[in-house]
Amino acid sequence: MQPLAITVGDPAGVGPEITAKALRDMSAAERAEIVVVGNIKTMERAMALAGGGLAFAPGLGPHPDGAVAAIDIPVAGAVPDGQISPAGGEAAFRAVEQAVTLAAEKRISVIVTAPLNKAALHAAGHEYDGHTGLLAALTHSPAGYMLLASEKLSAIHVSTHVSLAEATRRPTQARVLGAIAAGDRHLRRLGLARPRIAVAGLNPHAGEGGIFGREEIDSIAPAIAEARAQGFAVTGPLPGDTVFHRALKGEFDLVVAQYHDQGHIPVKLIAFDTTVNVTLGLPIERTSVDHGTAFDIAWKGVADHTNMKAAIAYARRMAAEPAR
Amino acid sequence: MQPLAITVGDPAGVGPEITAKALRDMSAAERAEIVVVGNIKTMERAMALAGGGLAFAPGLGPHPDGAVAAIDIPVAGAVPDGQISPAGGEAAFRAVEQAVTLAAEKRISVIVTAPLNKAALHAAGHEYDGHTGLLAALTHSPAGYMLLASEKLSAIHVSTHVSLAEATRRPTQARVLGAIAAGDRHLRRLGLARPRIAVAGLNPHAGEGGIFGREEIDSIAPAIAEARAQGFAVTGPLPGDTVFHRALKGEFDLVVAQYHDQGHIPVKLIAFDTTVNVTLGLPIERTSVDHGTAFDIAWKGVADHTNMKAAIAYARRMAAEPAR
Repeated sequence: MQPLAITVGDPAGVGPEITAKALRDMSAAERAEIVVVGNIKTMERAMALAGGGLAFAPGLGPHPDGAVAAIDIPVAGAVPDGQISPAGGEAAFRAVEQAVTLAAEKRISVIVTAPLNKAALHAAGHEYDGHTGLLAALTHSPAGYMLLASEKLSAIHVSTHVSLAEATRRPTQARVLGAIAAGDRHLRRLGLARPRIAVAGLNPHAGEGGIFGREEIDSIAPAIAEARAQGFAVTGPLPGDTVFHRALKGEFDLVVAQYHDQGHIPVKLIAFDTTVNVTLGLPIERTSVDHGTAFDIAWKGVADHTNMKAAIAYARRMAAEPAR
Repeated sequence: MQPLAITVGDPAGVGPEITAKALRDMSAAERAEIVVVGNIKTMERAMALAGGGLAFAPGLGPHPDGAVAAIDIPVAGAVPDGQISPAGGEAAFRAVEQAVTLAAEKRISVIVTAPLNKAALHAAGHEYDGHTGLLAALTHSPAGYMLLASEKLSAIHVSTHVSLAEATRRPTQARVLGAIAAGDRHLRRLGLARPRIAVAGLNPHAGEGGIFGREEIDSIAPAIAEARAQGFAVTGPLPGDTVFHRALKGEFDLVVAQYHDQGHIPVKLIAFDTTVNVTLGLPIERTSVDHGTAFDIAWKGVADHTNMKAAIAYARRMAAEPAR
């Protein structure tokens, strides 16, 4: 198996600390499958904070002495703890760029990303809406799909980081069909023979026959019909306020949510600390923590790494399966 | 205490059956506080189906012989079980109209509504979007607010039964402030000294400083500022995907949701069978089951009355408090 890469995100945030804590808690065998992409000096400081006593050594590893494999990323300028800085944004950008190159070269498998800060990214001159847009640009791909995954309930999103007004215009037939196909492919890759997928409506009561909006009639239902014709096990459009309950009870393996909050509200309510953000539909594979840089608590030793552990565990499941 | 009124909804749906089952399960003392508003013959048939062995007698009661007090509503025409009919829609309409009259005359306290069918209502010539619009019209009131209440999590909605595109235009400063005030008043009435209210943003991440939409900046935050100035204990706008988790953990007593699914998804996920729909901001008070007429299972003896029991229990809590 190729190693998993962990990009440590903005050095001013909680990324280095939660990465160090996750490494500390791994077995030696698990650690041998990891390469950290980030500034080594920063990671040494984070490891001291985490009390893990682990060394870092350059290269993809594994290193015979047990040092954690690390691709060193320079930090060019001051990065004050817990603050937005161009140098922090640049370091976060470079780590992702480096990881994408390694993935394209098939030298690593799945990328796990610690949080970066959008404002710092912009201050460094990189005008992306965050990791998702950055990864799409670096891989020269159209927009991917965000899957929010947890043990009990998962949702893949037709749109995410746009205003709700803009989100009402996003569920085109092609985009909804693409979400169904990307979700199906992902779940098959994780071992499900025939994933059962439900599609939520955009409007209340899934439009109630067109009374509360026509998007279900005009684009969502046609996308579902086409997906069925292609052999997908897909149901809907179902009202948003019952579909997640039914999925949670075991009726569906995945819900297609039409916009950010429709998918994020139920998944995070059920699995707040263990929700993993997975990017699908790009040439590279990536999981992520589902929280931000948390500048207010960064470098104080109090950051909780539960979510990072879940993101790494999910990436291991993906990497363990043979084919894409 | 004035009695609670239960309107039995469309006679072709599950309303009569769940009402009969709820009456069957009550103590005699509890039943003495109820008046059923619906066709007595229909209710006798439903009671036979429920195996409750209770009689109905006209009038507001309580009746010394233990018969259930009932305001008889004529059914003029055929009402086939489980089907849309003008006579069914008309009977459902008349029951609500009668209950509103009794409430206006202070002869009953809170109205509990069993489901009506929108298409049947329309077939009978009553062009309302359901109970909420009907109640507003009958009380000559502007639109009320829908509160979705459960033991652990409750949400009051800025808008409900409109398309999502229309819903993005509804969070005006006045309407958001009105939701906060209506929610606060209701919770104080139920005994909370100082209700802690959180307001969800409309957009993902509550707009993230205007990047994903400006409604938070332009109208929601100003409404919160004004509410605080008026003395309400209100917080926000908070991202939709964290505010419900925080409320569930006990940080807030109520969440102001900006649209139907934003409030309905989390509350129904946490309390699917016991979620009560409460109409606030009208001159009359009303609770309701949170499901429809379920024509597919009507009059088969299999309808679950758990939700009706919750709606009645919540109405009792409201009626037990002294003042409005």
